[in-house]
Amino acid sequence: MKQSVYLNHAATSNHKFEATIQSLCQYLEKNNNINTNRGSQNIDELEVVFEARQLLAEFFHAPDPAHIIFTANATTSLNMVLNGLLKPGDHVLTTEVEHNAVTRPLYLLEQRQNISVTRIPCKSDGRLDPEIIESLIRPETKVIVMTHASNVLGTILPVKECFEIAKAHGILTVLDSAQTAGFLAIDIEEMLIDVLAFTGHKSLMGLSGIGGFALAQNMEHKIKPWMSGGTGSASLSLAQPDFLPDKFEPGTQNMLGILSLRSSLESIKALGLNKIADHERALTARFLTGLKKLPVTILGCTEANQRVPVVSIRSARVDSGELSQQLFDRYQIVTRSGLHCSPLAHQTAGTLKTGAVRFSFGWNTTLDEIEYTLKALKEILSE
Amino acid sequence: MKQSVYLNHAATSNHKFEATIQSLCQYLEKNNNINTNRGSQNIDELEVVFEARQLLAEFFHAPDPAHIIFTANATTSLNMVLNGLLKPGDHVLTTEVEHNAVTRPLYLLEQRQNISVTRIPCKSDGRLDPEIIESLIRPETKVIVMTHASNVLGTILPVKECFEIAKAHGILTVLDSAQTAGFLAIDIEEMLIDVLAFTGHKSLMGLSGIGGFALAQNMEHKIKPWMSGGTGSASLSLAQPDFLPDKFEPGTQNMLGILSLRSSLESIKALGLNKIADHERALTARFLTGLKKLPVTILGCTEANQRVPVVSIRSARVDSGELSQQLFDRYQIVTRSGLHCSPLAHQTAGTLKTGAVRFSFGWNTTLDEIEYTLKALKEILSE
Repeated sequence: MKQSVYLNHAATSNHKFEATIQSLCQYLEKNNNINTNRGSQNIDELEVVFEARQLLAEFFHAPDPAHIIFTANATTSLNMVLNGLLKPGDHVLTTEVEHNAVTRPLYLLEQRQNISVTRIPCKSDGRLDPEIIESLIRPETKVIVMTHASNVLGTILPVKECFEIAKAHGILTVLDSAQTAGFLAIDIEEMLIDVLAFTGHKSLMGLSGIGGFALAQNMEHKIKPWMSGGTGSASLSLAQPDFLPDKFEPGTQNMLGILSLRSSLESIKALGLNKIADHERALTARFLTGLKKLPVTILGCTEANQRVPVVSIRSARVDSGELSQQLFDRYQIVTRSGLHCSPLAHQTAGTLKTGAVRFSFGWNTTLDEIEYTLKALKEILSE
Repeated sequence: MKQSVYLNHAATSNHKFEATIQSLCQYLEKNNNINTNRGSQNIDELEVVFEARQLLAEFFHAPDPAHIIFTANATTSLNMVLNGLLKPGDHVLTTEVEHNAVTRPLYLLEQRQNISVTRIPCKSDGRLDPEIIESLIRPETKVIVMTHASNVLGTILPVKECFEIAKAHGILTVLDSAQTAGFLAIDIEEMLIDVLAFTGHKSLMGLSGIGGFALAQNMEHKIKPWMSGGTGSASLSLAQPDFLPDKFEPGTQNMLGILSLRSSLESIKALGLNKIADHERALTARFLTGLKKLPVTILGCTEANQRVPVVSIRSARVDSGELSQQLFDRYQIVTRSGLHCSPLAHQTAGTLKTGAVRFSFGWNTTLDEIEYTLKALKEILSE
């Protein structure tokens, strides 16, 4: 391989569609980067923002474009939503494989706001049995917040089954789709999702610095403003406006990021989500098959169709950091070692002390790159 | 004028330096948009982020690059800092000309956290007499937060004089530099600023969606984390890491925004801040002189050297919204009418009911455009 092999899509997809690059460069070259959603007279740009909301609303099956809120990333969305939903005394259900984007905000809420948190146990491969949930629900359980798939183990969680149980008890449902939006179809109505946090820079193939959340009908009334500031609307009021999307969009937004999402969503729509998923699932299946012949432990469940295109491994002989570094230094393969911002998932997998090396694939990853990576691993591990 | 005349730089500068556009397009065309600050092996990009911090640290005279925190915008910075600094029972001093980026977070804190707020009175032109401050200080006064210049009136506030009084009483100082960074020199040490909130998309001529704050030495220990999440560091800890910059940088950042600031700061440095300020001050002076011959009321102080390049007016005969619309429809001049996200400044100026039309200038605004705008105003107002 002459070029480096980028297998860190679970952090950020390095692939943007040609059309996205072109539209961003055209926008930049106009040198006319106007702040559109603040009382602007530039209609074109207001339309860009509206169209991006429209495409996302359609993509996630949100009630309408105003129910799509833009933020800087999924982390900001989750902080905003959890802090906006919870009040002292509330109880929250979450899982044992969450990313720190969920775990850390909940930890702060536990420390400061007298929120209690119960983690739904997961098996060491990340699987979760929804039947356990019933026994964990308390009268004060207000919210269930969970990831759609572990960013370490790759295992997809049974979101709908969990949310059905939650809904039967009047519990609000929050999904972190950082690892799935752009790979798995997500329908907030069908999956009983009240709030869907998403980020633009992973499988949605937009820029980094743009993300947001989609709201189910009427959810806007259940979330208090947490971050506030200028919105270019209801300026007379010292309180944040109570209508969508302004209620949750203080401050000037990432226009180029919004533009990137409008463009990439169009490309994903044209291509078909299935085509992307089929390709990435095939890569994952081939990688898993190859790995089984190597002296490594595979984290997460072994069936490719129950995973996102994320595979973490550890070796009993080579330290995870060292393995990742050798893959890069000798083969120009970019992976990620360490704890992947998810100590919980590593605890669940029993790899909190060793860490793991994570390989994650995207739309531009090729089967050749998978074969090359397997060969590299074989060479390193047989030395 | 064949092209439109953009006089809304106080919202977002439509000008980016050629070098900035080029570096952004080159980055995009590499199609290799990697999430660098999360355990990346892409050294080039880690350097981009470090260099941007370094340039900003130098620009604002912060102790070192780690004392520059990136956020999505000044609004996020102000929410993060005010919520991180204040605890129930604290008292805050602010002014009567603040933007909603300060006013709304303080209002939420008043409503929910038993924080009390006193606004330092301003004259109708926005000027503030620092001597008043002494009498407003209470034993529980913890923070003074103020804008460096009104985004409506254009009037520059006597920050250093105010902060000297605050410091003598052990009060922490927070400056909102949204209207001044990139126009006035700001030295956090010399001006006794503990926290400087800035945004990238106005006079710093970067993209929208990037901003941040600069911290004085040791300030990081006085601000609790408010937003939390993955940082790619100290991942084992459920609490936000306590070192800089990670303590205040959860989630994936706007890489293109950071790149834009690195580039624009280099251009500003090469050009010299004085050259930019002299140009924009000359435009403002000319505009003020021309306005004095027209039947309009000029908001803010009349001396160009006591203002940022922002001039708001109202007419007794033509409604502000109507005037702004006519300037756009008939002359392609982009201004902004309404309350400019600052009801306080309008209340201070006595224009809460009428609003005003705001003209704001940037580095690419020309004297010809000022003359053209004065001519347009003369025509509209004499009909």
